[in-house]
Amino acid sequence: MADWNPALYSRFEAERTRPAAELLARVPLEAPRSVVDLGCGPGNSTELLARRYRAARIVGTDTSEAMLAAARERLPAVTFERSDIAEWSAAEPVDLLYANASLQWVPDHPRLIPRLVAALAPGGALAAQVPDNLDEPSHALMRETAADPRFAPLIGDASRLRTRILCERRYYDLLAPLADVDLWRTTYYHPLDRAADIVQWLRSTGLKPFLEPLTPELQAHFLAEYERRLEAAYPARADGRRLLAFPRLFLIARRRD
Amino acid sequence: MADWNPALYSRFEAERTRPAAELLARVPLEAPRSVVDLGCGPGNSTELLARRYRAARIVGTDTSEAMLAAARERLPAVTFERSDIAEWSAAEPVDLLYANASLQWVPDHPRLIPRLVAALAPGGALAAQVPDNLDEPSHALMRETAADPRFAPLIGDASRLRTRILCERRYYDLLAPLADVDLWRTTYYHPLDRAADIVQWLRSTGLKPFLEPLTPELQAHFLAEYERRLEAAYPARADGRRLLAFPRLFLIARRRD
Repeated sequence: MADWNPALYSRFEAERTRPAAELLARVPLEAPRSVVDLGCGPGNSTELLARRYRAARIVGTDTSEAMLAAARERLPAVTFERSDIAEWSAAEPVDLLYANASLQWVPDHPRLIPRLVAALAPGGALAAQVPDNLDEPSHALMRETAADPRFAPLIGDASRLRTRILCERRYYDLLAPLADVDLWRTTYYHPLDRAADIVQWLRSTGLKPFLEPLTPELQAHFLAEYERRLEAAYPARADGRRLLAFPRLFLIARRRD
Repeated sequence: MADWNPALYSRFEAERTRPAAELLARVPLEAPRSVVDLGCGPGNSTELLARRYRAARIVGTDTSEAMLAAARERLPAVTFERSDIAEWSAAEPVDLLYANASLQWVPDHPRLIPRLVAALAPGGALAAQVPDNLDEPSHALMRETAADPRFAPLIGDASRLRTRILCERRYYDLLAPLADVDLWRTTYYHPLDRAADIVQWLRSTGLKPFLEPLTPELQAHFLAEYERRLEAAYPARADGRRLLAFPRLFLIARRRD
């Protein structure tokens, strides 16, 4: 994929940071020495980690140079490194592995999750929040729009870039033999002024692989067609606003031994 | 219904208090002068309110004398009053109306919710957490067991005592014209050692209206039959434990004007 856009991503920063904070609030570690923020984006989640764990050695990783640059500017004292979670490994066992809204871009969770737990020090924790919205209208309508003959030959199967996450029970089964597990799923209902705001929200993330293969003119057509479908799928509520349901899976696994 | 059992209710107090704390954490009030805990039970939620809002005048209400006695013992400085939420009204506008796991026992939410908002002072907030588990196996199997000819004539339609809550969008429509709304739904996955623990969890709440009409002997038969069905519906996970999914709806409405 082309590089990410930190400014666009940060437009809904309050909404995006809330799940990051709720995940962190449940992490059962008082003073981890080493913390890795896997897929740190523009550093909004890293900032939460740095605020809670002032004495920790914190490293943020991301595949995007633009996101890493934004994160370094935000937190000059933290180390940010370019790396892909699919290939990431730690030189030494880590106390806290934190992954906020990043594992949905990494394939093969049945192999990934035990590999991440194996990178933990005894007593260390893996904490992850993963968007689980592929079956929401917001995402189903991206795929529907992409099937339009104007776009289909160029876009192909854009949805293959996102990993369909496992069901909650499957994550539990992967984790429970190795760790104490805290598992929950929250659907947030975000009131947005208009359907176009849903487009803006997703433009920096879920829509990215759908738009990149298109010419600027076709991108505009794609977005107009997608927004038209959103208008119908998210009818105006009693106050005229649209309610975007956004389900997210949370898991915290504290390694035993 | 017969009176409630505070000791039984408190057996899973950590699990029951977590949603109460998560609800409170989102209440956007720094220093409310008056707080009412509607359906306070044994005072576990009231204790959270008293800890956050030390200067507030806090009143807890419940229909159960046993619960009120337990709450008074726990928090001697707080006022606890017997009253039914369906008939509750405030002498003066309230800054924070807090209802943790109580509104599911109150009928007619389309009338109830606006009535509660009307009891708020301008800028005041209604904060509610409502179990949304009637369609989970845990509750469907209560109804299935109650249909057994040994129990059906005595139990009748026990499920009528619980209110089937509205969908999220409907609460939004009720609230948004009056208030700023924060709405989310969390499903907690509780690992329990055995199916019998699910019975214990629900015995003090959801099972209550099913058991009360039965003789002690029939109660024992009912519980054995219900547990047998739970064994099948909640298969052992990789670590041998059962994973109880417990969905809960959260809403916070801050009154405008």
